[in-house]
Amino acid sequence: MRLTFDEIKKEIKRVFMKYGLSEEKAEICARIHTESTYDGIYSHGTGRVARFADYLQKGWVDAGAEPTLETDAGAIRIYNGNMGPGVLNALYCVEEGMKLAAQYGISMVGIKNTTHWMRGGSYGLHAARKGYIAIMWTNTESVMPPWGAKEGRLGNNPFVMAVPGVDGTEPIMLDMAVSQYSYGKIAMTRLAGKKLPFAGGFDKEGNLTDDPGAIQESRRILPMGYWKGSSFSFMLDILGSLLSNGIGAADLDLVGKGSCGGASQIMILIDPDKISGKEHRDEVLKKALHHLRSAALSEHSNGIFAPGEDFAKFREDHDKNGIFVEDVIWNEILSL
Amino acid sequence: MRLTFDEIKKEIKRVFMKYGLSEEKAEICARIHTESTYDGIYSHGTGRVARFADYLQKGWVDAGAEPTLETDAGAIRIYNGNMGPGVLNALYCVEEGMKLAAQYGISMVGIKNTTHWMRGGSYGLHAARKGYIAIMWTNTESVMPPWGAKEGRLGNNPFVMAVPGVDGTEPIMLDMAVSQYSYGKIAMTRLAGKKLPFAGGFDKEGNLTDDPGAIQESRRILPMGYWKGSSFSFMLDILGSLLSNGIGAADLDLVGKGSCGGASQIMILIDPDKISGKEHRDEVLKKALHHLRSAALSEHSNGIFAPGEDFAKFREDHDKNGIFVEDVIWNEILSL
Repeated sequence: MRLTFDEIKKEIKRVFMKYGLSEEKAEICARIHTESTYDGIYSHGTGRVARFADYLQKGWVDAGAEPTLETDAGAIRIYNGNMGPGVLNALYCVEEGMKLAAQYGISMVGIKNTTHWMRGGSYGLHAARKGYIAIMWTNTESVMPPWGAKEGRLGNNPFVMAVPGVDGTEPIMLDMAVSQYSYGKIAMTRLAGKKLPFAGGFDKEGNLTDDPGAIQESRRILPMGYWKGSSFSFMLDILGSLLSNGIGAADLDLVGKGSCGGASQIMILIDPDKISGKEHRDEVLKKALHHLRSAALSEHSNGIFAPGEDFAKFREDHDKNGIFVEDVIWNEILSL
Repeated sequence: MRLTFDEIKKEIKRVFMKYGLSEEKAEICARIHTESTYDGIYSHGTGRVARFADYLQKGWVDAGAEPTLETDAGAIRIYNGNMGPGVLNALYCVEEGMKLAAQYGISMVGIKNTTHWMRGGSYGLHAARKGYIAIMWTNTESVMPPWGAKEGRLGNNPFVMAVPGVDGTEPIMLDMAVSQYSYGKIAMTRLAGKKLPFAGGFDKEGNLTDDPGAIQESRRILPMGYWKGSSFSFMLDILGSLLSNGIGAADLDLVGKGSCGGASQIMILIDPDKISGKEHRDEVLKKALHHLRSAALSEHSNGIFAPGEDFAKFREDHDKNGIFVEDVIWNEILSL
């Protein structure tokens, strides 16, 4: 199905209002979900509307809660998310972080006791479009075994780095989970009757495998870079809890309020104008992008992409043909 | 060969003084190289003494240069490394960064036009032992093809995250390059007549391979996590140059002063005392470590390690039996 941005946003807003968000808050959340869909991140856009409504209904997300300031220390602020909507909490923190970064050059905002922020890249894009450089991550409940283990103890802890684009174009942005593939990607690959492009986990016998069904069964997804991603994930978890005075995977597993219920997010924001001029920075970025793209393509290449550049093809298609929404997802949203 | 810490440090100091460092500076550099060796990071300890001496002799590193302040903006400082010894420049930046973090809660120090900092973890350990949380990285010249390409355009851009240890024990620290394996590891594996544990690059025909010789020939090492590490590396490169007002891989390739000649390093430091008490943080870390270690081991496990925990076995062995130095490396140092 193909729909306009406003058609999608309006319907999502209706659902979120029905499940308890104020009109203003529903509008913002619906915009974020629709933007993710527009960028081709369907899983965290239209694909998460029903789950978020379910969390609101169960009281796992408190529709009316707002973040409260717990620590104000120079360029650092720590908030309690009070289990409010993760999207609104995270947007609030980016705004506060940008104000602090404008004042001090760099800032860090930590928020604890918040809920799923949906697509981490939403906040990287928000900051970078306003001219800030962003480093952000969230911790999550345990979904991935540590290297050397077969039971899940690590989050996939999405990690974001964003930089304002060249000449006012869209930001350059990395937005990655630390697992090689998400369970969502693994499930979709299985439904399509395909294999993963590369090994994405272990089967029940401990063999690396590209068979999505075997990984769904074992629940042993692979960290990116094997032992490297395993350690990176652990660091993001403990930094997440330490820097927000919040909790990590060990306790998140016990909260019982859905994916990322009670999680912490960290946002480090930097004002690049404190360091050099926009014109000079654009030159640096143009040179880096040219250098990247100047490499000879590999044998089976689909092209060389700068981080975030892959959104462009979705935006182009969606502008031309309308935004894609799977029929089953759209009917689910309509039925809510 | 097995030697004491002081035996190694004394000999390295002698070499560094011979090649132009003052006694005081040679002492500090020799200590850093010896500490890396003690922690089992031989490649960046004793293994880099001859190369550093060579760089000093060629004038690629300016033995007498000191960092100069170029930008002082709130919690941000930018230095010009003036092509001085990377180890001394980096230590200077950590010290300045810790002072700023004590004042503002978080700080960022960027240094451009510096030289190889040897083991990135040296600075993470230094900061974390003094009670700070550290996020640091360096950019490097191009050594790795971007995803979809067969020519090197990305650095391996070592990335460090460090946290003070529990109850005064050693820091918890991630210190990783963004390539799956270093060329050093690939060369050593080939010399040992072995295969890499997992695919570490592509052969000349573009097939993923665990054959170290084929990767040495193609120069096509693999980013950790395939496309993920490729994008992560690009972000670390551009953030490295933007946040230090310095240069990235495209220009580093043209400097012609050895590995990392002219590179930028970024150090983000946070004073965790601004956020919570040490006792509480130790409880958080103990819980996270217990959670990690409580997982059932996998079929071929060598154990579950917290980041940085693997140094302990080297330290223990080196305390008991003396610090290991390969004969050929030691003879090379003696001959300098």
